[in-house]
Amino acid sequence: MAVYTDISDEELDALLADYDVGEALAFKGIAEGVENSNFLLETTKGRFILTLYERRVKADELPYFLNLMTWLADRGFPSARPVADREGRVLKTVREKPAAMVEFLTGLSVRRPTVAHCREAGGGLARFHLAGDGYPGRRANDLGQPSWAPMFDRLGAAAEDLKPGLAATIAGDLAMLAKAWPGGLPSGTIHADLFPDNVFFREGRFAAAIDFYFACDDAYAYDLAVMLNAWCFEADGSFNLTAARALLAGYQEHRPLSAAEREALPVLAHGAAMRFFLTRLNDWFSTPTGALVRPKDPLEYERKLAVHRAGLDLLADA
Amino acid sequence: MAVYTDISDEELDALLADYDVGEALAFKGIAEGVENSNFLLETTKGRFILTLYERRVKADELPYFLNLMTWLADRGFPSARPVADREGRVLKTVREKPAAMVEFLTGLSVRRPTVAHCREAGGGLARFHLAGDGYPGRRANDLGQPSWAPMFDRLGAAAEDLKPGLAATIAGDLAMLAKAWPGGLPSGTIHADLFPDNVFFREGRFAAAIDFYFACDDAYAYDLAVMLNAWCFEADGSFNLTAARALLAGYQEHRPLSAAEREALPVLAHGAAMRFFLTRLNDWFSTPTGALVRPKDPLEYERKLAVHRAGLDLLADA
Repeated sequence: MAVYTDISDEELDALLADYDVGEALAFKGIAEGVENSNFLLETTKGRFILTLYERRVKADELPYFLNLMTWLADRGFPSARPVADREGRVLKTVREKPAAMVEFLTGLSVRRPTVAHCREAGGGLARFHLAGDGYPGRRANDLGQPSWAPMFDRLGAAAEDLKPGLAATIAGDLAMLAKAWPGGLPSGTIHADLFPDNVFFREGRFAAAIDFYFACDDAYAYDLAVMLNAWCFEADGSFNLTAARALLAGYQEHRPLSAAEREALPVLAHGAAMRFFLTRLNDWFSTPTGALVRPKDPLEYERKLAVHRAGLDLLADA
Repeated sequence: MAVYTDISDEELDALLADYDVGEALAFKGIAEGVENSNFLLETTKGRFILTLYERRVKADELPYFLNLMTWLADRGFPSARPVADREGRVLKTVREKPAAMVEFLTGLSVRRPTVAHCREAGGGLARFHLAGDGYPGRRANDLGQPSWAPMFDRLGAAAEDLKPGLAATIAGDLAMLAKAWPGGLPSGTIHADLFPDNVFFREGRFAAAIDFYFACDDAYAYDLAVMLNAWCFEADGSFNLTAARALLAGYQEHRPLSAAEREALPVLAHGAAMRFFLTRLNDWFSTPTGALVRPKDPLEYERKLAVHRAGLDLLADA
């Protein structure tokens, strides 16, 4: 949540000269996303978000993400549509950084989703999966199950530092996940990061999904598992089964789950918690003190792992 | 340029319930101003900026600033109009901080003003002075000439640290300014901080002034002197007399200066440079390393002081 790069009026003018979007009326750095610099641009022809990609997002992967946003918008899914310049390019360079302009979407994210929000967001994910069907872009999930054990090889000491004894527990989880990880589930393009801050609502209805920079190919049900962790835990760490059932019901209104997918949900949710635990653990110990962006607490996901370890078998009935 | 305080959807809903501004459609933290948290709010009825006052601005002075904005807007000056809640209050509390909502203004600030921008901005300042005439609010300029010597009493070592020998030079400036400071010039409500980032342009024309939190009672010509320093120096530290003449000409299209005002401009500009040098020097040495906001370099104003020391008598002809 920070503007890293400042853009001068001359740089903005030079950029806008490439587009057919009218004259600038307002331009403000906005606090959206944690990895990139985002600016709200209002012109005589509309409103746009200009993003400068600062890090983590690899420049050669940007066409995959931007083309996906266009693909989804073309199919009626509410994702921000990238704007092409006069030569048809959506990927530009500003201050020697990759940059793209997308249409502005209205809507507000919620910090503490209600059961009704969970139902709506579940429906939004299913619509994402259905609209993404046939998207020709391919991107392997580089934070998927096969990556976790190698990632943890470097993080054992960090886990012990966080909580004595944790390294062995995580190693046990990883062995179980490697063994129990389901194959052959229906797969396609997933969002892989549909946390509450990446979903906009309007009047209580799902209005848009944003921040596609973890999208990749994986099992659809794994995307749901990411959401079960991100949307259905209370602040005190308890799992809200009512919210989870609402999320799944909302999803299944658009795309019913197979028996194999429903059965796989507890282990997928355990694995999804592992993925966020590991990346947060890594960020926690690699972010310099005093950095602009405060890393997220890995203990939140350590607690979720403990819940999954105890079993969420009730989910299979949802 | 930072969002200090985050506002949750629940807090926003609670705040909006007090107003008759419709339902929220979008809400984003924006990077505007360095002292406060600012949010762009779009509702079904319009667009607004919500400001949470974080520091420096004293809560008991906020009615002076907000009433001034209303006063100016009522008189056709393009300042953001504060929005009153259903009970007529413009000053609210959010997260135990003073807060206010104002109407959104379009326009873009320029980083490197051209001569044409200087003329427009000068005209904008004169319009501010004319529209502010009769404003009943009173606020002494607590960063005016009488404050400089006491402020410097604490900063002598900092000045030496910045540049050996500087403390004696500044002490000499302060003695000269105390002696030569003009009294009896036409006075009223001044902006006192009309830097390029506080002025919006649309299609090259002055479109709005923002950030009124240094406004106070002082000589109108002192406000022009602040702008001469802020708008008419090149990046290499040289003074652009053409830009300065354009600024003064733009001003005088609306409010001609008296002979006494014109004559006083060089010493007023020297003093205005002193005011920003001293506060930047203070901030430079009192801001903790790693703070979110990087203090502005006091050396920029030390160089401007040197230019004024050598004399800007040509200004009196403008």
